[in-house]
Amino acid sequence: MYINIPPTDKERIVIIGAGFAGLSLARKLAKSSYQVILLDKNNFHQFQPLFYQVAMAGLEPSSISFPLRKIFQKVKNVFFRMTEVDRVDTAAQLISTPLGDLHYDHLVLAMGADTNFFGNEEVRRHAIPMKSVSEALYLRNAILNDFEKALNVVDYDERQGLIDIVIVGGGPTGVEVAGALAEMKKYILPREYKELDCDEIDIHLIQGADCLLKGMSSEASEAAERFLSDIGVQVKLNTRVTGFDGKYVSMKDGSKIRSNKVIWAAGIRANTIEGMPEEVITYGRRIKVNPYNQVEGFSRVYALGDLAYMEEKDFPEGHPQVAQVAIQQAENLAKNLKKNFVEPKEFAYNDLGSMATIGRNRAVVDLSRVKFQGFFAWVVWLVVHLFALIGVKNKIFVFINWLWNYMTYDQSLRLIIRPYLPFGKKEKMEKVE
Amino acid sequence: MYINIPPTDKERIVIIGAGFAGLSLARKLAKSSYQVILLDKNNFHQFQPLFYQVAMAGLEPSSISFPLRKIFQKVKNVFFRMTEVDRVDTAAQLISTPLGDLHYDHLVLAMGADTNFFGNEEVRRHAIPMKSVSEALYLRNAILNDFEKALNVVDYDERQGLIDIVIVGGGPTGVEVAGALAEMKKYILPREYKELDCDEIDIHLIQGADCLLKGMSSEASEAAERFLSDIGVQVKLNTRVTGFDGKYVSMKDGSKIRSNKVIWAAGIRANTIEGMPEEVITYGRRIKVNPYNQVEGFSRVYALGDLAYMEEKDFPEGHPQVAQVAIQQAENLAKNLKKNFVEPKEFAYNDLGSMATIGRNRAVVDLSRVKFQGFFAWVVWLVVHLFALIGVKNKIFVFINWLWNYMTYDQSLRLIIRPYLPFGKKEKMEKVE
Repeated sequence: MYINIPPTDKERIVIIGAGFAGLSLARKLAKSSYQVILLDKNNFHQFQPLFYQVAMAGLEPSSISFPLRKIFQKVKNVFFRMTEVDRVDTAAQLISTPLGDLHYDHLVLAMGADTNFFGNEEVRRHAIPMKSVSEALYLRNAILNDFEKALNVVDYDERQGLIDIVIVGGGPTGVEVAGALAEMKKYILPREYKELDCDEIDIHLIQGADCLLKGMSSEASEAAERFLSDIGVQVKLNTRVTGFDGKYVSMKDGSKIRSNKVIWAAGIRANTIEGMPEEVITYGRRIKVNPYNQVEGFSRVYALGDLAYMEEKDFPEGHPQVAQVAIQQAENLAKNLKKNFVEPKEFAYNDLGSMATIGRNRAVVDLSRVKFQGFFAWVVWLVVHLFALIGVKNKIFVFINWLWNYMTYDQSLRLIIRPYLPFGKKEKMEKVE
Repeated sequence: MYINIPPTDKERIVIIGAGFAGLSLARKLAKSSYQVILLDKNNFHQFQPLFYQVAMAGLEPSSISFPLRKIFQKVKNVFFRMTEVDRVDTAAQLISTPLGDLHYDHLVLAMGADTNFFGNEEVRRHAIPMKSVSEALYLRNAILNDFEKALNVVDYDERQGLIDIVIVGGGPTGVEVAGALAEMKKYILPREYKELDCDEIDIHLIQGADCLLKGMSSEASEAAERFLSDIGVQVKLNTRVTGFDGKYVSMKDGSKIRSNKVIWAAGIRANTIEGMPEEVITYGRRIKVNPYNQVEGFSRVYALGDLAYMEEKDFPEGHPQVAQVAIQQAENLAKNLKKNFVEPKEFAYNDLGSMATIGRNRAVVDLSRVKFQGFFAWVVWLVVHLFALIGVKNKIFVFINWLWNYMTYDQSLRLIIRPYLPFGKKEKMEKVE
């Protein structure tokens, strides 16, 4: 059975994944001479840089997500289908999905990356990842639920397990979550959980490397560490987490931390698909591509963004797995596709810089020529993220939320909304994700 | 084991349920001479009149919900605990919860009402209720999911099952949902599901009685019926639904409608609690109370709102189960409690009127002296509901959403956000609800 798509004389481009790479490509190919089929397991695009604010009850998922159909309302050659993809058969130019098979003339792999537990099954069982809005919401609920429970726990050790939080990974996500949690501890929890001694709450940030924000400048790393210490986060560098049984986090040096909650932001791994040859897959499961994003050995199969591994002069070990690379690769590929790869242009990454925020008024920004930290960096961070969001309404809502939270010192979305499990439909729910 | 609550010399009032009745009472008793313990299974208050807009992707749950802890941040004598309640022991003045037992001096039952399937197990298994934000979100996801699926279904009959919707119950909820669905069919679906023939979508509203909006004026009923017909809703009066197997809805007259989705808004039933004597429970599981909301036979156990059954001169069969009754009863009880029931005041319902909205620009309003329908009624509906919402931020967000949706003819929150089921934690999830 085939997926039901209107027949066409045009060449068909199938894009798997509507993250920054896949969505940018589909938008650039709108009104082109191709038929574009965009596939994603969700019916919306997720703005990953703000997941942590969803987890911290500062923003709603809908403010940082955008329905894909809405984007293509006025576009006739782009078709969206909500589905997973099971397999690709590159010989037959066919992909298999639960909806049916689909033939392609060009295939673009843009499935992004997911959490990497580095094979540690125990950690995978107990730690909370943060690579989707659903996971971010789950984390929000877990934190709030545990504070509610802690009110009723008299035993000190058991209460510590509920209120202390360990964040593993000192990249932007880990740093931003730690900063936001420290602010919640300072401004919100003492007002709402008066019966708890909020000084008992410990926030640990564990980083394997010798500095935070690896990949940014040493000025940024040092400032981030200083900002976090100032607001009470306990930062541990050069420390590897080796296990987490749901009650204790174990470190390689033999030390342990009592906590029921570990937020795992320690690494990512590209999402693979069955049917791609083993030899094109490299470290972190990334797929080797040439400077045109064509997968090694293929001319009409491409990989973009987090899952593409391309060696460029200044990036001999591949590009950083960030939104900017994904978007720029998509733009370059769109240009090459539009001219049917006649004199195609090689991809050249234009690094616009990187940044991370640490709570109120503080951020670190590295641009190519200038690096700065503190209040001005924080304003730059806000403006850049606001403009990067899709949709005028999302921009308005995020802006008002930020303004509101800033003025009131309060993220007010602390609702534990549990999924409704319809009667007799439990099996159906279990299969989700 | 007892729930961990700070000890006190004050008399303790335990309120079960933070709906309109329970929350209003707790707020009125803030800074009183009682210790007030407010219990709810959710950590937020839900604004029921706008559930249907959450289901129709017009508003986010957070815009119509309010975190209970936030309301009582500055109040010292009110304590909130998130918990279900298992039993009450009126002889020992004790309630039992999963968190432990709790002694009370005064007990207020304010658990509201839930969907009534009138004992029809088949309907309960397959129909979708709409009495919580979780259920409203589930309905939203079900509708959107089915449209996605329908794109891939070639068989006419099977596709009808996915895109047609049957609403059972012609009260405000049923009327409002039907109106919103008809607008979605008209303005949004043709733009986003271009490959579907949206004329194939049928929206059925089935009402058992001989008019819509029973309890409102005949002008309102007739106008509602006319407005719904105008926007394409197929209204069936005097029709009883006898069964729904997930594929076909069966009526008492033997007719059937093909649809996979039935929204059940046909009736409510009060939430009961184990331990209350059988003889105080009456029709619809409501609890008989005297004019002071004291449960029959008790002086220190009260029932408020949807679950209270009080006979008043103008309301010989009990009050309507609406927010206004709940709020006014709570206010009256708060006054009587504050003066220790010395010369207590009898409850007298001041009916401020009722209203319902049917899509853009159209509503029906019955006030005590004047009844009107149409555009002005719709403006009144908007203003009243906006002001009734708790919280300045919620008001702002709902207002902007309404303005945005009105100008763009578009509810833009069409995200199917699936709950994240953590690895190895399926059992935990199943127990929810």
